[in-house]
Amino acid sequence: MTHAKPEPPFRPVREPKGMGVAMVGHAFMGRAHANALRQVNRFFDLPLQVLPRVVVGRDRARAAAMAEKLGFAEASADLATVLARDDVHIVDVATPNDSHHEIAMAALAAGKHVLCEKPLAMTVAEAEAMVAAARRAGVRVGVWHNYRRCPAASLAQRLVERGELGVVRQVRATYLQDWLASADTPASWRTERRRCGSGAHGDLNAHLIDMTRFVTGLEFAEVCGMEQTFTPTRTTPDGRAVRVDVDDAFAFLARFTNGAIGTYEATRTAPGRKNWHQLEVHGATGSLLWNLERMNEVQVFRYDEPADARGYRTVMCMDPVHPYAAHWWPDGHVLGYEHTFVHTLADFLLALHDGSPFAPDFADGLAVQRVLDAAARSARERHWVEVGTRGKEAAR
Amino acid sequence: MTHAKPEPPFRPVREPKGMGVAMVGHAFMGRAHANALRQVNRFFDLPLQVLPRVVVGRDRARAAAMAEKLGFAEASADLATVLARDDVHIVDVATPNDSHHEIAMAALAAGKHVLCEKPLAMTVAEAEAMVAAARRAGVRVGVWHNYRRCPAASLAQRLVERGELGVVRQVRATYLQDWLASADTPASWRTERRRCGSGAHGDLNAHLIDMTRFVTGLEFAEVCGMEQTFTPTRTTPDGRAVRVDVDDAFAFLARFTNGAIGTYEATRTAPGRKNWHQLEVHGATGSLLWNLERMNEVQVFRYDEPADARGYRTVMCMDPVHPYAAHWWPDGHVLGYEHTFVHTLADFLLALHDGSPFAPDFADGLAVQRVLDAAARSARERHWVEVGTRGKEAAR
Amino acid sequence: MTHAKPEPPFRPVREPKGMGVAMVGHAFMGRAHANALRQVNRFFDLPLQVLPRVVVGRDRARAAAMAEKLGFAEASADLATVLARDDVHIVDVATPNDSHHEIAMAALAAGKHVLCEKPLAMTVAEAEAMVAAARRAGVRVGVWHNYRRCPAASLAQRLVERGELGVVRQVRATYLQDWLASADTPASWRTERRRCGSGAHGDLNAHLIDMTRFVTGLEFAEVCGMEQTFTPTRTTPDGRAVRVDVDDAFAFLARFTNGAIGTYEATRTAPGRKNWHQLEVHGATGSLLWNLERMNEVQVFRYDEPADARGYRTVMCMDPVHPYAAHWWPDGHVLGYEHTFVHTLADFLLALHDGSPFAPDFADGLAVQRVLDAAARSARERHWVEVGTRGKEAAR
Amino acid sequence: MTHAKPEPPFRPVREPKGMGVAMVGHAFMGRAHANALRQVNRFFDLPLQVLPRVVVGRDRARAAAMAEKLGFAEASADLATVLARDDVHIVDVATPNDSHHEIAMAALAAGKHVLCEKPLAMTVAEAEAMVAAARRAGVRVGVWHNYRRCPAASLAQRLVERGELGVVRQVRATYLQDWLASADTPASWRTERRRCGSGAHGDLNAHLIDMTRFVTGLEFAEVCGMEQTFTPTRTTPDGRAVRVDVDDAFAFLARFTNGAIGTYEATRTAPGRKNWHQLEVHGATGSLLWNLERMNEVQVFRYDEPADARGYRTVMCMDPVHPYAAHWWPDGHVLGYEHTFVHTLADFLLALHDGSPFAPDFADGLAVQRVLDAAARSARERHWVEVGTRGKEAAR
Repeated sequence: MTHAKPEPPFRPVREPKGMGVAMVGHAFMGRAHANALRQVNRFFDLPLQVLPRVVVGRDRARAAAMAEKLGFAEASADLATVLARDDVHIVDVATPNDSHHEIAMAALAAGKHVLCEKPLAMTVAEAEAMVAAARRAGVRVGVWHNYRRCPAASLAQRLVERGELGVVRQVRATYLQDWLASADTPASWRTERRRCGSGAHGDLNAHLIDMTRFVTGLEFAEVCGMEQTFTPTRTTPDGRAVRVDVDDAFAFLARFTNGAIGTYEATRTAPGRKNWHQLEVHGATGSLLWNLERMNEVQVFRYDEPADARGYRTVMCMDPVHPYAAHWWPDGHVLGYEHTFVHTLADFLLALHDGSPFAPDFADGLAVQRVLDAAARSARERHWVEVGTRGKEAAR
Repeated sequence: MTHAKPEPPFRPVREPKGMGVAMVGHAFMGRAHANALRQVNRFFDLPLQVLPRVVVGRDRARAAAMAEKLGFAEASADLATVLARDDVHIVDVATPNDSHHEIAMAALAAGKHVLCEKPLAMTVAEAEAMVAAARRAGVRVGVWHNYRRCPAASLAQRLVERGELGVVRQVRATYLQDWLASADTPASWRTERRRCGSGAHGDLNAHLIDMTRFVTGLEFAEVCGMEQTFTPTRTTPDGRAVRVDVDDAFAFLARFTNGAIGTYEATRTAPGRKNWHQLEVHGATGSLLWNLERMNEVQVFRYDEPADARGYRTVMCMDPVHPYAAHWWPDGHVLGYEHTFVHTLADFLLALHDGSPFAPDFADGLAVQRVLDAAARSARERHWVEVGTRGKEAAR
Repeated sequence: MTHAKPEPPFRPVREPKGMGVAMVGHAFMGRAHANALRQVNRFFDLPLQVLPRVVVGRDRARAAAMAEKLGFAEASADLATVLARDDVHIVDVATPNDSHHEIAMAALAAGKHVLCEKPLAMTVAEAEAMVAAARRAGVRVGVWHNYRRCPAASLAQRLVERGELGVVRQVRATYLQDWLASADTPASWRTERRRCGSGAHGDLNAHLIDMTRFVTGLEFAEVCGMEQTFTPTRTTPDGRAVRVDVDDAFAFLARFTNGAIGTYEATRTAPGRKNWHQLEVHGATGSLLWNLERMNEVQVFRYDEPADARGYRTVMCMDPVHPYAAHWWPDGHVLGYEHTFVHTLADFLLALHDGSPFAPDFADGLAVQRVLDAAARSARERHWVEVGTRGKEAAR
Repeated sequence: MTHAKPEPPFRPVREPKGMGVAMVGHAFMGRAHANALRQVNRFFDLPLQVLPRVVVGRDRARAAAMAEKLGFAEASADLATVLARDDVHIVDVATPNDSHHEIAMAALAAGKHVLCEKPLAMTVAEAEAMVAAARRAGVRVGVWHNYRRCPAASLAQRLVERGELGVVRQVRATYLQDWLASADTPASWRTERRRCGSGAHGDLNAHLIDMTRFVTGLEFAEVCGMEQTFTPTRTTPDGRAVRVDVDDAFAFLARFTNGAIGTYEATRTAPGRKNWHQLEVHGATGSLLWNLERMNEVQVFRYDEPADARGYRTVMCMDPVHPYAAHWWPDGHVLGYEHTFVHTLADFLLALHDGSPFAPDFADGLAVQRVLDAAARSARERHWVEVGTRGKEAAR
């Protein structure tokens, strides 16, 4: 069906057992990644061992301080030199969004495996280039869409895949936060389009889009969105009033390639919601609901109960039979946000060793980017916009 | 601001105390209305007394049987004669949608007060005519959007009105049912556009639109929708396969005149949801959530709690301080679906007696119709459509 | 097994179709009963028809006013005369607790069917006499333990009966209210032992005990309780400080005859709980939970789900397959407190007509009384106390 | 008020900064402790640094393997030698219950600070000896009642302490699990009294007792309990049928020294409940509810809301203002079971450095033991039993 260029085959990583990791960036996401690097081999029996080698930052002194704090052996301000090292096998990109493309391309050129924070890139074009480069490089790449590996979310995917809901027809996804509800929240890079690209849309809808694709396997066909900014001016910490040119809230309608439909809404101005990342899925014979604020639970409805005793079940996903749970604590001892990064890394290492595919890869990151871009354009142009399908880049 | 034609003034009804009621139609809705007619004076101390005089139906014998069952004195198959009676003061229109206009217009022409089932009419033009006729007639009219008078919904409106949420910015409304999830559900008049107008849209979104206007006071400015039919063919009870030409699900985005935004979704194919009529409202300083499946509760969030003890409160609306609750049972003894009709009727009788306004009136019904129509058109034409404002008909 | 005296056989009531009812008492409970009397034949197709004949009260004028308000034909202050009437077939006892025994005994002596408010009597001895009189009279008797016929509670019973939970092992029952949490709530007859017998114990634990027996079929073997009064002095409406000599809260442990165990707690001092009547049942293979504050739902857990998708299901009991629901409104349109009285009356009328047993009857009321008494004694004597079994009165 | 023997003063630990830790035991609890040892200085800025020096086990080879896995420098099978080392400052007792006393006494004799798993000891006498020894030694001791430092539980304590609930009157505590619901679960040391002391009682009620004392500050005065074993015989993994001589479920009533009352229930036979550790507290002016299965939330009720908008608030305890939360991730990113150990350790290190008290200490562990013992005796003797007060050991 496609005329893809031949790609170098991926050879499973059997030696060395110890995989040196260079982490570029060391802010909030760096802390979460570093925790995963330290924890993964303590809780998962894996054929490969993570070696947290070097933290890379613009300022060597700060990088060094963070390296010690986060458990890395070294620090560096010179990415090129780090990429040239033989004892660095994986590059973990944990920098702000606008440098993902450049760093990942350099790492791929150096033949490194790459794990990249989401969003993959600032534009579809950048993301396409990264996908192509990753394929040429014959390495494993991944995007840190960590919520996929929340045990309850993984279970949701498993339930859909084994047909418990029937054909998926409807998705309802919301990501609600409230830190911009108050007009007193100061302006920052996150409220300035030039530096962040968009507001709630790129930050939060990106998660909803990835989770939809993961849990349901649906692909977006076309979207139609709207955005709004409720507080058009905010004050910087040093007292200047500046215009807010990104969305506070962004909602869109979606049609999927199989005829299913969906509604999406991301907002930072929903008082009382902190991290309300919720996905509802309705199939022909069942439904499910997952919410990050109660991340260890998934609600499931199926018609195959006695007719008088049907209802949404609240499944606590902390038994050994649930995804990832057996690696941690006994039944019902819940996990938290950071564990999702450990699970992502564990699966990435297994994929490296076994030669099995890893998802989400850069093509998945690109797919998210395409939906985001189409939705943003639809909001500007006030009509529906088609989303490029995943097949496109495969055809290049 | 408007150049409205002068309308006849409404004179409060002081005599007779007993208000004769003719109910046209006696199916499901007729049962609910009749119950309200029988109960309202038993639980509310009102200056006017309902007298359930006559049930009007196409078939006199069936009407007579229902009259006895429902507590009416008489039955008739001749609406004109009933409308000519001096002892009938209120006409209650409980027929299928396609006859609302004709019956209400006749009743208004006869000078009767009219309570009409929702939707008010089949088209905006019909609804406009009904609004105009009601104004000319100098009577009180109402639409049975009964959910407004669920105590918890009334409380929600009260909380918004007294400013507990600040300026309303976002609305998220869903009405989820599942009786068409199965392809085995037979075809009926409800799946045939010629007879019902639309599917989930007209039936369920009508409620969401009315509740939004009631609880928040917002007016719709423009909408953009999409619809889908998952089961394109169904079998009639007598075994014929027929095409389904109404929507199973209909979602739309909305912008309000004050800059607020909203998302709406109605579906009859959401496994496990029976009567999931939910409204979420986010204001600048608070939020609320109401759901018909737990109709006696409203959830409220406000920032003015101690910073470490904020959260959504679940308010059980069954104390004497809550709307309507004092007329029924002690604290915490919950009410059900049918009570909302009793409350609607009680308020209508008070409005008759006091000369105070009653809402929702026909103009409210028209406003709902306009949003429905604009959304339906936007779905066909695949772009945003403006909604006529309420001011329009006032200006005629 | 027993040496019971022969009892007169009960002859099914086939004529007259119209069953005249005399209701003694017309306060809160009278309102709920009267509503049931008016509604039952409107929503249930029954072989017998309720005729609300006469309200009996101490004050004839007040009784007459209430008769009109509540839908009765007549009023009377003379019980004896009423009991002598041939057109009164059922006596409904809706008076305060201390007169149940006297009125019911008189009604039974007159050969009337009797429905009595709970608690059946003030003492076990009174209750035993009533049981014996009812058996001699050859009539149908019932106690208004209305919560049994909340659809979700009836479903709970049905699920246990058909074995969905396996053998019942544990019960956890709480009835939490908060109207005495404040020391400002005035003293009343409900805080004075001489007039009410006990506090939360007799009022609320009575419900928990009856519901346990109904849902699980268990019989109490022995109990051990404790009580506490947090506000020892309250002020009467006319300003006198009086001692509170009834319990604010009463908890007890229970052992059942089959080896199951239970915990019970009733309180009127639980801030934020209004009518938190909750029953949890654990069997060998499943669990359920019901709560009056969300009275239309029951939660059910069963092991026979896929191992990774087990959880408590929230069953909305408003489908036609659920108990009583088909008589009211479509799927998911919820019922309220008052409907439980209608259901009780409908089943009582069916039992009259069919000659089938009706429960709860006076023996059930006696069984509740025995548990209450044993628990009260155990609290005084600070050790476990055996509960008389149901077989006892049968042996007399 | 007391005539306590003088105790050696505790000198704050300023040097060395690095605190060597020997962990005795390396099973489930060892994994959780070791995780805390590794993580605490990465997420908390503390004046002292944990140095995980040595794992002590009966089998040196197994201890060595675990040392590597858990991040310790060394392993040993010789406790005495380890206790003699100068570079070991803290002894962490993570062994089965029957060796806590012996190991802790040896560590105290060697002048080490001690952290001990719960329960502190097998008997009250043992626990009393440990309390006395700790006081003589002039060191800091702690018990790993880790749930106290779940952020939401810590918040609950804070709310009670600052008076948000008024005087505490009622406690309702349940710990429900289901791993013994099935008769197929094999016999183990946990079902054999000789090896584990008791069943659900010692294991689960211990938590309920400690959490009550922590959150409310109440002290138990007297208790009355009952226990039951539903499956009297189980089969060992090697096929022998053995008698189960510990409780499956244990419930007790409690009276506190201030007049408050409580109900307690622990069970391992509640189908569908995995780790349902729930505490409800009612005060004179408010209530709260916490549950480990949703460990990041606490529900709070207060009367000081508008009368028509009161209700239980669900507080997500993941904002920087909440206990411990600022050390981890942004708003609303939830924590899990293991974090409670990290928090316990962080506070212990602070107490070492600052010379401030640490709770729960051995006296708290003893207090729990006294309540457990009294309840067990009351169940055997079938009447109320007094609980020794905490003042007792202080007076010795």
